[in-house]
Amino acid sequence: MTDQQSFDDCVAILNQGGSPRVWSLIVSFFGDLALNDGDTVSGVVLSRLGVMAGIAPEALRVALHRLKRDGWIGSERNGRRSSYFLTKRGREESAAASPRIYGGPVPEPGSWTVLISEPGSEPKDISTKTINPDGCIFVGDNITIIPGEGSGHDEALLCLSGPEIPAPSWLRGQLIGPDLIGAAGRLHAAFSQLASLHPVNQHLSATETATLRTLIVHSWRRVRLRQPDLPDRFFSNDWKGPECRRLFEALLDDLPRPALEALEAEANGEVQGRAG
Amino acid sequence: MTDQQSFDDCVAILNQGGSPRVWSLIVSFFGDLALNDGDTVSGVVLSRLGVMAGIAPEALRVALHRLKRDGWIGSERNGRRSSYFLTKRGREESAAASPRIYGGPVPEPGSWTVLISEPGSEPKDISTKTINPDGCIFVGDNITIIPGEGSGHDEALLCLSGPEIPAPSWLRGQLIGPDLIGAAGRLHAAFSQLASLHPVNQHLSATETATLRTLIVHSWRRVRLRQPDLPDRFFSNDWKGPECRRLFEALLDDLPRPALEALEAEANGEVQGRAG
Repeated sequence: MTDQQSFDDCVAILNQGGSPRVWSLIVSFFGDLALNDGDTVSGVVLSRLGVMAGIAPEALRVALHRLKRDGWIGSERNGRRSSYFLTKRGREESAAASPRIYGGPVPEPGSWTVLISEPGSEPKDISTKTINPDGCIFVGDNITIIPGEGSGHDEALLCLSGPEIPAPSWLRGQLIGPDLIGAAGRLHAAFSQLASLHPVNQHLSATETATLRTLIVHSWRRVRLRQPDLPDRFFSNDWKGPECRRLFEALLDDLPRPALEALEAEANGEVQGRAG
Repeated sequence: MTDQQSFDDCVAILNQGGSPRVWSLIVSFFGDLALNDGDTVSGVVLSRLGVMAGIAPEALRVALHRLKRDGWIGSERNGRRSSYFLTKRGREESAAASPRIYGGPVPEPGSWTVLISEPGSEPKDISTKTINPDGCIFVGDNITIIPGEGSGHDEALLCLSGPEIPAPSWLRGQLIGPDLIGAAGRLHAAFSQLASLHPVNQHLSATETATLRTLIVHSWRRVRLRQPDLPDRFFSNDWKGPECRRLFEALLDDLPRPALEALEAEANGEVQGRAG
């Protein structure tokens, strides 16, 4: 098998028979490789990366346009070359998501609070009063469990804070829906298959490495950001999130983050090669 | 007003237009005046007390018979005189109820536990697993709140223990039903009226004092033992339990517990008087 064939196989495995959402792929790329203030990436690098990831050039242009319009990325023009970079807002939102994507398992909070509203009353949006809305557990119409100490809650809520809470099986069956269970199962299969190809042993270019990293982050991100921010013991036994996380970390460890300069150099080499 | 008239007024106030449940009145009498191992009360004393409290002699006999059959009291015969006493079981059950009847307001427990079963599942009788079933709060079909730390509960329960819990108004409106609210209101009125007659200033015999004490304990017992064992802040503002308790304590303080010997002496005097 040639290196090119092997790289294409890796991309196909990560794309799981479809093509990635371009907007999300670009966000994943910047979050992984160009997160710092001052980091810029040329349009040529983005184009090469898009082609390698299986994205049509026009789809990339549309996505870049949309991300600029939404204030996520900015661009600057230098002669015939465009460069792109995360705006302040883009950097902040990427940095905020980073711990969830790259961090370990959600730790146990030191305390939990149960909030109970009157049964049969109009359901209240008690989630808006929580410390961490993503770590909430909704039980029935009138119970919300949040990590942390409760304080400053609505007077109409019966609330109790304490250090520990178990995860009975009926609850574990509810917190992650079958769609996400299925998505994590497919991702686990893809990551396992990818790991068995040992991309670390192949002679990958910096851009190929960046492409695989971006697709890996993108794939994991789609599962991880849909998972409630709760310790893994709250999820059912068929949830493959923890296995995905371990493979995600191992795969990234084997594909060290290339420097932006290396990507630009490869793109320039190709341009010069073509021009030559 | 004669002392006799005044005493009869006190009895009428305490009977609130009806006649007391005889079984419960005898239990109240023994619990208040003959609780100790070795305490015995002659049938003659019980008869005089029953008459003073407005109980028909045959109703007293039936109730004594029933209490014997149920193992609450025993009896012994000495010539033509019968004596009655609490059995071991009767003493134990009376002693167990005493703190609730004679004690102060229910104190705050150091901790609370919320137990949540699966919403929509068959309601579980989680109360059987609690430390103190009488201090439970049931919220909807699937939430039970119990005083104390939770431990050893059903694995199917989501439980959380913590130090403090508020009492929102919707909950305070639920924990005591309108019947008991009404009963406490009427008892409060009766106790207030009784206190205004100042029975302490009347020349009451030991048997009259015992009769009033027994009726006072009996009246309060019927309200108190139906009240959940929760701190008063959990009940609605129209709940007169705390006021009843204060008057109950003040009324008993003014009617010191007579010795059983004094009751027997008065009964003997009457019998000898009749015989003479």
